[in-house]
Amino acid sequence: MTIVSSLLQRNARFAEGFRAGGLPAIPARGLAILTCMDARLDVLRLLGLELGDAHVIRNAGARASEDAIRSLVASTVLGEVREIVVIHHTRCAMRSVTNEELQERVAELTGADATGIEFAPPLADIRASVWEDVRRITTARFVPTDVVVSGLIYDVDTGKLDLVVDPTRARVG
Amino acid sequence: MTIVSSLLQRNARFAEGFRAGGLPAIPARGLAILTCMDARLDVLRLLGLELGDAHVIRNAGARASEDAIRSLVASTVLGEVREIVVIHHTRCAMRSVTNEELQERVAELTGADATGIEFAPPLADIRASVWEDVRRITTARFVPTDVVVSGLIYDVDTGKLDLVVDPTRARVG
Repeated sequence: MTIVSSLLQRNARFAEGFRAGGLPAIPARGLAILTCMDARLDVLRLLGLELGDAHVIRNAGARASEDAIRSLVASTVLGEVREIVVIHHTRCAMRSVTNEELQERVAELTGADATGIEFAPPLADIRASVWEDVRRITTARFVPTDVVVSGLIYDVDTGKLDLVVDPTRARVG
Repeated sequence: MTIVSSLLQRNARFAEGFRAGGLPAIPARGLAILTCMDARLDVLRLLGLELGDAHVIRNAGARASEDAIRSLVASTVLGEVREIVVIHHTRCAMRSVTNEELQERVAELTGADATGIEFAPPLADIRASVWEDVRRITTARFVPTDVVVSGLIYDVDTGKLDLVVDPTRARVG
């Protein structure tokens, strides 16, 4: 049995109790979160947010990739978002391997030559990578300059957030 | 006051009650979800999943972009994921505008020339776009061919999931 068939059963129970229909597409708090795909992050819960409050963009490593920037542009332009929070986290699997190791494992599993493909983040230091991703957003020419950006690290073992890039420093540091 | 300062206060209360430390980075269900950044999707709740169960990748429109594929490669190779579920949804803001309209609004807000940048998904039909994103994953050369892929649509007003691409059809349709 595939997992998706059990997910459909679980969703049927969820839908029975669903009472949050009719919400607008515009996030209620004017907020967008950029974070990692990691399975240990329950984004709304760890930030104390409700359904409808924020756009949530996630990828491997919480990187401000071109596609993440595309999403943030849609978020600010279409979604009227005026504050962006970047959240990296401790014990990220993307930091446990080098790009070369990942390329080798991809080649083993798929037979395809993955030489030169950048799967892993280039920065080993987590605080430096938060700074880099905040800067990529504050310097992205399609993101309005009045959008507030901050950078945090989430500890997957304590549940605590640590502020690394204060929004007042994001555009000057 | 910025939103991030209130998020830090909310997180402090969350961390006080946090008891889920020590989880491994490998998703417990061998599952990855690709879905939209939309604020009306509480991904774990609507699928009946627990913390630690699945990787969650999100962007504007739930598109199988190059960066989403990069994340899914990391997910399958590093995270031992063997099943991928693509979830698009009703009333998606990305479907309410054309690419040209978005480019104009970006130019108005930022002053930057956004001509030619593809912000919005090219397909107006939601079922066709689910099929396209599933196909992009099943044909991506760095995603192992034994990975099971399915495609669904989530109704933001009823909380219900609709199966569009059955995993047995994803590689043949």
